[in-house]
Order: sequence, then C-alpha cells, then structure tokens
Amino acid sequence: MSNALARPLRLLTIEGGEGAGKSTVVRVLRDALLAEGAEVVTTREPGGTPLAERIRGLLLEAGDEPVHPHTELLLMFAARAQHVQQRVQPALARGAWVISDRFTDSSYAYQGAARGIETAFIAELERRVVGIEPGLTLLLDLDVTHARERTRGRDLLGGVSPDRIERERDEFFQRVRAGFLARAAQHPERIRVIDARPDPDTVAAAALAALSEYRRVHGL
Amino acid sequence: MSNALARPLRLLTIEGGEGAGKSTVVRVLRDALLAEGAEVVTTREPGGTPLAERIRGLLLEAGDEPVHPHTELLLMFAARAQHVQQRVQPALARGAWVISDRFTDSSYAYQGAARGIETAFIAELERRVVGIEPGLTLLLDLDVTHARERTRGRDLLGGVSPDRIERERDEFFQRVRAGFLARAAQHPERIRVIDARPDPDTVAAAALAALSEYRRVHGL
Ligand SMILES: Nc1ncnc2c1ncn2[C@@H]1O[C@H](COP(=O)(O)OP(=O)(O)OP(=O)(O)O)[C@@H](O)[C@H]1O
Ligand SMILES: Nc1ncnc2c1ncn2[C@@H]1O[C@H](COP(=O)(O)OP(=O)(O)OP(=O)(O)O)[C@@H](O)[C@H]1O
Ligand SMILES: [Mg+2]
Ligand SMILES: [Mg+2]
Repeated sequence: MSNALARPLRLLTIEGGEGAGKSTVVRVLRDALLAEGAEVVTTREPGGTPLAERIRGLLLEAGDEPVHPHTELLLMFAARAQHVQQRVQPALARGAWVISDRFTDSSYAYQGAARGIETAFIAELERRVVGIEPGLTLLLDLDVTHARERTRGRDLLGGVSPDRIERERDEFFQRVRAGFLARAAQHPERIRVIDARPDPDTVAAAALAALSEYRRVHGL
Repeated sequence: MSNALARPLRLLTIEGGEGAGKSTVVRVLRDALLAEGAEVVTTREPGGTPLAERIRGLLLEAGDEPVHPHTELLLMFAARAQHVQQRVQPALARGAWVISDRFTDSSYAYQGAARGIETAFIAELERRVVGIEPGLTLLLDLDVTHARERTRGRDLLGGVSPDRIERERDEFFQRVRAGFLARAAQHPERIRVIDARPDPDTVAAAALAALSEYRRVHGL
C-alpha cells in the first residue's frame, strides 16, 4: 500500500534513543549548510512552536497521574500537527532546509514498538495530520548501556532530573531501539543508520558523508 | 456499519452549545440520583482529570498562535482518552452513575461540523481511543442569539472574558448547532433533544422526564 506521503527533499530528521547524540548531529549538519549560505531552520519534536512546546511540557512532566498510551500518542501527534503546519511547512515553502531533532519515526519507535500501539493507527495519524515524511533521516543507533552513560554524564553536569519517559526501564529503551531499526529496515531508501558509538568527530563525519551522498543523488 | 462501541447504561452525557444550560441540567440530574442514595460522579470535557484539565487549558487559551483544527481535534481526544481511562471507566466499573458535561458528540459538532474535519476521522478516533458511547444523551438545543444572551449575562457577573472557542462568530455556532441536531437525527435511540429555550424549571422537568423514561425502559 502506498501511504501517499509527500517527501520534501529539504526536510532532514535525526532520530535515535535518548543520549544517542541527536542534538549534537543536528548542530553539525546545520553548521555545514549554514557555511554554504543556505537558510536552515533547526527544530525539535515534540515542540517547535510555542503551543507544541507546551504540549511537550505536559508529555514529559513526571507527575502522579499515569498517562495512558493513547493520551501520549495523541498529544505527540497534536504537537506534530501544529509543528508541521506552523513551522515546518512555511520554512520548506520558502526554500529553507529544515532539520528536526526527532519526527514521526520516533512515534513508531516509542508509542508503537515500545508502548504497544498498533502501527496501523500511527500510520493513519501520520497520513491524516502529518502528510509528509523527511527526504533523509539519520538514525543514530546506540545500545542502551552506552546511551545511559552519556545522559547520566550530561544530566549530572546540568543538574537536571530525568523526565517521565527517561524514567522508563532498560527493556523499554531496548524496544525503542529495535523499533527504530525495524523502521530503517522498512525504509532503506530514506533512513540511514549511523553507528553512534564512536567518538563525536567520527559520528559527525558519518553524518556529513550521508548528507553529501544524499545531496549528490538528488542534485541538491 | 456497526461502530462496535460499548454503551454503558449508567453513563449519561449532556450536550449543546455554549450557554444552553448544560451545567445547570447536570446538577439537576445529579441531585435527583443522589436523593435516591445512588453514587453519582459528575464530570466534564474537555477535562475530568488533572492532566485532562491541563489539556483543556491549552485548548481554551486565547493566545497569538493559530491552533490548527487537527491540533484541536487531537488535543480533545487526548483529554478524552485520559478522562475515559482514568475517571469514567473506574466509576462505571464500581456501579456509579457518571454524568458528563459534554462528551464525544461535542467533537462531531465542533471539530466536525463547525471546523470541517471529516466525520470518518472522528469516528476512527472514537472507536480506537474512546470505545464507549453514553446510554443516554440529552441535547439542549438553543438558538445562537438566546445562547449569547445567557453567556453574556453570566460572564458579566463573573468578570470572565470569553475563551478561544467562545470568540468564534455566530456562523460557527450555527454550524455547531446543526451538527448536534444531525447527530441526534442519526442516533434517535440514544440522543433526546430538549428545547432549552423555556425557563430553568421547565427545562429541568423535561430532563428529569427523559431520565425517568430511560430508566423505566432499561429497568434501571
Ligand atoms: N559520539 C559521541 N561520543 C561520546 N559522547 C557523545 C557523542 N555524541 C554526543 N555525546 C555526548 O553525549 C551526550 C548526549 O548527546 P546529545 O545531547 O547530542 O544526545 P541526544 O540524542 O540529543 O540526547 P537526548 O535524547 O537526551 O536529547 C552529550 O553530553 C554529548 O556531548
Ligand atoms: N432554561 C434557562 N433559562 C434561562 N437561563 C438559563 C437557563 N438554563 C441556564 N440558564 C442560565 O444561563 C447561563 C448558562 O447556563 P449554564 O452555565 O448551565 O450553560 P452551559 O451550557 O453549561 O454553558 P457553558 O457552555 O458556557 O458551560 C447561566 O447563567 C444559567 O443560570
Ligand atoms: Mg537532544
Ligand atoms: Mg457549563
């Protein structure tokens, strides 16, 4: 079945679990494109507009009330609908590159593979309220143990405590990782898996090489 | 097509436009059931749990950022999923009556008829994340002019300013009203239309009569 999503070539997304190095790679790609004088919009999900960022706040807050998986899924897609309409589409329409730190693939991995929501429901929401998929997605793949070391180091430095999703157990993040790898296997033409274990310079070089190859193929 | 929703007999919902007298009728029905010694949970949508009430806050706030209709729809159903799972189902499971000030019919009227979202999408969300429909729904039907007089009177007294949805134009509320009446025509066995124009005692008597008739038919 064709899912009939448009695929804007200048929409790039960076995916992966917590601490894989997504935000670091977003900056690397942004700087490379900016150095050529291109317009680049960097953004993130959930979030990217003031309302979507407030929805993010509800999603990540670690309160007393259990959040039902359907509630989490619909809040994610509410934020994504707002982000796509208010921020991503206008930027693409004027010819800018858009680099998003997470996008719809994260819902397949977290709400789908890890929380158990049916893939068909996620695909239905994607088709109805997102309508686009990235031209290129870099999936930073990292085992859970190494990822925990990275976030622990960073959080200790910043004095921040883990959010509602970061508090999940290792089994949850193993399902997230498997969900991302399954997405990559189903969409080999769009998703490039990058080994996130090496040092930052090596990961940055792999990300830049994937972008160059993509631009060469598409004449961008 | 059967939509395969369960219909718990002790779930009652009150629907209608702004100022139709919904909250007033909720109190009338609650008091009648309490007088018999029944357990009654009164609640409202969007809202009904702490998280759902915070989603309500995002929905009704009149900010600068335009809220996309899909964002509004998904926030409504996120709040409803949470409300049904955390509040409505547990109350019904222990045998309580639940009276909700608005429920899914409001999404068909506001997000569907008034904002133009496809009915099939709303029905899909209802089937996937709500799963139940009320045993009895009282639709308080009132023309937009009289409704505005009532809310104006109340808001002047309380010093509250209209929320994001109350700021819509009359045409919007005419579509809401037509949407509710269309729902009632499609679900005559569940939805009773009550003329909300008469004085409060007359409306209360009509609501109580509809509840008595419903209970007699179902042996409740
Ligand atoms: N390749 C790498 N090797 C070692 N450390 C790294 C590497 N890439 C990033 N880091 C460090 O690991 C931590 C997490 O990186 P980053 O914030 O980029 O990850 P993230 O995927 O955005 O995390 P989050 O999901 O929490 O937003 C940071 O302290 C960062 O400096
Ligand atoms: N039958 C009636 N005749 C005249 N006034 C009424 C009647 N029913 C309620 N009112 C008054 O009209 C106002 C709106 O009533 P109410 O708050 O019950 O409506 P509502 O449908 O809950 O409104 P909202 O959608 O704003 O919550 C209140 O001031 C109430 O006292
Ligand atoms: Mg990050
Ligand atoms: Mg009310």
